[in-house]
Amino acid sequence: MSESREPISDEVRRIFEQAAFITDLGVSLDRVAPGVCETSLRLERRHLQQDGYAHAGVLATLADHTAGAAAATLVGPNEYVLSVEFKINLLRPAHGERLRCRATVLKPGSRIDVVESELWAEDGGDSKLVAKATVTLAVLARAPRED
Amino acid sequence: MSESREPISDEVRRIFEQAAFITDLGVSLDRVAPGVCETSLRLERRHLQQDGYAHAGVLATLADHTAGAAAATLVGPNEYVLSVEFKINLLRPAHGERLRCRATVLKPGSRIDVVESELWAEDGGDSKLVAKATVTLAVLARAPRED
Amino acid sequence: MSESREPISDEVRRIFEQAAFITDLGVSLDRVAPGVCETSLRLERRHLQQDGYAHAGVLATLADHTAGAAAATLVGPNEYVLSVEFKINLLRPAHGERLRCRATVLKPGSRIDVVESELWAEDGGDSKLVAKATVTLAVLARAPRED
Amino acid sequence: MSESREPISDEVRRIFEQAAFITDLGVSLDRVAPGVCETSLRLERRHLQQDGYAHAGVLATLADHTAGAAAATLVGPNEYVLSVEFKINLLRPAHGERLRCRATVLKPGSRIDVVESELWAEDGGDSKLVAKATVTLAVLARAPRED
Repeated sequence: MSESREPISDEVRRIFEQAAFITDLGVSLDRVAPGVCETSLRLERRHLQQDGYAHAGVLATLADHTAGAAAATLVGPNEYVLSVEFKINLLRPAHGERLRCRATVLKPGSRIDVVESELWAEDGGDSKLVAKATVTLAVLARAPRED
Repeated sequence: MSESREPISDEVRRIFEQAAFITDLGVSLDRVAPGVCETSLRLERRHLQQDGYAHAGVLATLADHTAGAAAATLVGPNEYVLSVEFKINLLRPAHGERLRCRATVLKPGSRIDVVESELWAEDGGDSKLVAKATVTLAVLARAPRED
Repeated sequence: MSESREPISDEVRRIFEQAAFITDLGVSLDRVAPGVCETSLRLERRHLQQDGYAHAGVLATLADHTAGAAAATLVGPNEYVLSVEFKINLLRPAHGERLRCRATVLKPGSRIDVVESELWAEDGGDSKLVAKATVTLAVLARAPRED
Repeated sequence: MSESREPISDEVRRIFEQAAFITDLGVSLDRVAPGVCETSLRLERRHLQQDGYAHAGVLATLADHTAGAAAATLVGPNEYVLSVEFKINLLRPAHGERLRCRATVLKPGSRIDVVESELWAEDGGDSKLVAKATVTLAVLARAPRED
């Protein structure tokens, strides 16, 4: 799927290093491969909602951003991706030491990429799938965007 | 829709005061009425993604949390709500001084609420719709939750 | 929103007259205006699921197709639209004499349109909102499509 | 996941035999196992939209109905399922001789099931993933339910 598309790393690095919300949240970039990205987040009190679970917004942020990086591994050197929409199912209350996210490109395209993100909560040796998202991204040329 | 369901305020207050992620982000609770909640957020650099727009995760957080509060205005005294899933369309890159979110319950139910959240970016006197979300929430009894 | 984009009618007519699934289902095109389309369907036994309600697939078909027509009112003469994804919330079991659907373009774009479709079930003089969908469509040039 | 929940077959059979829209469309029930259901549909002209592809409504119908059956394999004898919402990504134009759908329960629950449906278009020996859906269903007790 990726053999004709490279180099990938500058854009992925930029996505993580220059996104203030992501660095502020504490997200780690753990692995990148063509069409795949994995991230994690050590859960702190500041990530929680009123019942002590990870906020759905934290899960959504991880799902969306990791999906964007997975899609970015497949774009050309003068292209970038922007999320058009996403949908996330919150399968279980998320709590524990760490969240992990793995995003996989389900369908790459020249204009639209569809990516799936899975999120697990890890607690001790235990790991549970807590959310799954589908993210639709537009592939855009690096040029002034109108709208 | 709300006349037989009250009091509403304690649960909504708790949703905003005890959600660390929301207070840390800087979200203001601006207005609550039966089935409706409005919030806003003064945009800072820490809320942005790599291209200088508000991160989709920030928009999703506002959409989800404000929807939860709108739904919470309609639940009984021993009930609370938890997001089951949501979908958000990112209509335009979001930038400016402030984000505003208004959530409106589209369909209240005894078990499931469906809420819509609209998000605007304000810049000077200008206001643009930047995202719209649909949030499905479960109405749960205040009791130990099993899974 | 539509003043510079026309003519609209040929493409909308084609969408309804040449879509075999839609004519076979019995969908009526009731109204078209820039960015808006309304359709209806007289409910018959063949539209129902196992509990006697309109099948979610019937509601989804109306929501998607009417959204496509609403988006088609805004495209240029050499463009057409294709659904990228949609999400539908089934708010109540749908039964009665007739389904009505109104689709409204929430955000037109040069590449992506976002449209909302609302569905009502009518029974006697009564009308109830039974579903709401958000549909994302790609605006494409009339030319051989690659994949 | 299913060992303590049975019997499953009557409800699944009912879902296919008594859903007029499904029998009228020509959907075949190909395989059922705990948490899984597979269906297929021989594509005919009446299933198509205006450009000669399978209508998104046909894909959505298969995705939703097959998901419902997969969820129904896991409910108790006095329970049934009803779709709350679904989201479908249309990955490629769908054409060919046959559509196949496989639905897998991602997260069973006592109140809410989340199911994923994948759809392939088959043409000659070729098979392509054309759509993927996520379906949220409510698990309900067999009793008159109004809302």
